[in-house]
Amino acid sequence: MYVGVDVGGTKVLAVGVEESGPGVKILGSVTVAMPGRDAPEAAIEEAMADAARRVAAGAEVRGVGISGAGLVDAEGERVRFAAHLPWRDTPVRSRMEDLLGLPVTLDNDANCAAYAELVAGAAQGVGSALLITVGTGIGGALIVGGRLYRGAHGTAGEFGHMQVVPDGLECECGLRGCWEQYCSGRALERVMRVAVGRHYDGPRVAALARAGDEVARRSIASIGTWLGVGAAGLVSAFDPELVIVGGGVSNDGDLLLAPARAALAESLQGTGHRVVPDLVPAAFGPEAGAVGAALIARDGR
Amino acid sequence: MYVGVDVGGTKVLAVGVEESGPGVKILGSVTVAMPGRDAPEAAIEEAMADAARRVAAGAEVRGVGISGAGLVDAEGERVRFAAHLPWRDTPVRSRMEDLLGLPVTLDNDANCAAYAELVAGAAQGVGSALLITVGTGIGGALIVGGRLYRGAHGTAGEFGHMQVVPDGLECECGLRGCWEQYCSGRALERVMRVAVGRHYDGPRVAALARAGDEVARRSIASIGTWLGVGAAGLVSAFDPELVIVGGGVSNDGDLLLAPARAALAESLQGTGHRVVPDLVPAAFGPEAGAVGAALIARDGR
Repeated sequence: MYVGVDVGGTKVLAVGVEESGPGVKILGSVTVAMPGRDAPEAAIEEAMADAARRVAAGAEVRGVGISGAGLVDAEGERVRFAAHLPWRDTPVRSRMEDLLGLPVTLDNDANCAAYAELVAGAAQGVGSALLITVGTGIGGALIVGGRLYRGAHGTAGEFGHMQVVPDGLECECGLRGCWEQYCSGRALERVMRVAVGRHYDGPRVAALARAGDEVARRSIASIGTWLGVGAAGLVSAFDPELVIVGGGVSNDGDLLLAPARAALAESLQGTGHRVVPDLVPAAFGPEAGAVGAALIARDGR
Repeated sequence: MYVGVDVGGTKVLAVGVEESGPGVKILGSVTVAMPGRDAPEAAIEEAMADAARRVAAGAEVRGVGISGAGLVDAEGERVRFAAHLPWRDTPVRSRMEDLLGLPVTLDNDANCAAYAELVAGAAQGVGSALLITVGTGIGGALIVGGRLYRGAHGTAGEFGHMQVVPDGLECECGLRGCWEQYCSGRALERVMRVAVGRHYDGPRVAALARAGDEVARRSIASIGTWLGVGAAGLVSAFDPELVIVGGGVSNDGDLLLAPARAALAESLQGTGHRVVPDLVPAAFGPEAGAVGAALIARDGR
């Protein structure tokens, strides 16, 4: 098998993927909590290795793919910068190879997710697409000519830190008004907290919304509207065939995506004289990063 | 010769370009005023034909390229929508061919400008670049793999109508808060008018700034800062080797570009852990659209 390890703001997810065959067969998955946001790098890397070993459970592993939030260099060696993690110019690929004693590949989490969608998901056979992952923050990836487009320095698709509000909310990346401050799991928690005066985590907001709670529905709709407004900017710039939305918050389905589609159509110039691309959920949901990382370990970057 | 005709918000520019040879030899140019923003389509098309005929001045013309502001379809037949012009799904290419009796090609103005930069300007030998043209509004083009990237429906690069201020200034396209409301020739005139209480056109603001007028310098710097902030969003998304700035306002040189470079570097996450692309002036300046249109007429789309 090949193993994919996705490291996000709050947890590490490892999946095992069958070595060959049509489509993608997921053999199992393991989730471990992140060791805390102020933990040293080594603790995070040990948690990643632990998750990889546990999902392998003694089976032969041919390679491990790492799906890392943040700026990954063009060579797939280092995480240059991660807003939600302590890595700064850190050689994550070689460190994980040393820890695991196995071939390791490294790519940006949204690139990994987009690769999974290309191989066996919503982007199969699609020439051009945007993938927007809405989780703790926003990740993004571009598909051009039916392939992942990584940019000149490996950092294309960092949609989450585009400024959408001048002098807006402070972001962990050090800037203000970043899109992910208005459209992410954390943004959803903040909007709900402001509305009701207490803390609910994202899945709880979703459960309330599904049970008909109007404040919860409006909170998710606020995130969805910001998703559509930001997507419209990207569609103006790239004119893709398709917009694919993944990440944990995309589990909220049409509670999120219906307001996003409305805002996308309303925020494009010349609507009625142009094609508004479909905005669809990712096929792999929150596991896309880990699955794609395993597929990249199998197929090469 | 080949003739390129660029139609902008305020004027029509036609250039004649020598048929072959290394580089680009511009044989002459003609500028005519636009017939007024509420003029019928036919008056604009006649002004374009008139400019083309006058620049040809009886010489043999092999083809005419039209550089049109707005959304041009993927086939290069119609202008779908133009914020500053009356065309709506208008078959501009065939109409101009009928008027001129010559082979005509049609492309978006910023795509034409980018093509000129690719053939003989700032984008020669560059794999990936953004071109941002700052004129009456903002135009844009993407270069991927050393070629123009037109998107799935021909409308990639419409950077000017990305929302940068929620509920911001009204735009002629019908949306609010579009980038070109804060970063364009018209934005410069508005900023200056608000500061001094009277109207100066863009070239007059530039002349005042060069003579040391502090209000004029700050007004241009405001446009430049918005240029850098918006460019940073696009760099986050696309990670290009180079950002090229064209259009009439780019004539203001470092009065515009120095604040833009500062804002670009300050508005990217992870500065210090990433490459900030150079932001350079277009080689062709305000003639780029017309020159590129002539080159596209010569080389094909």
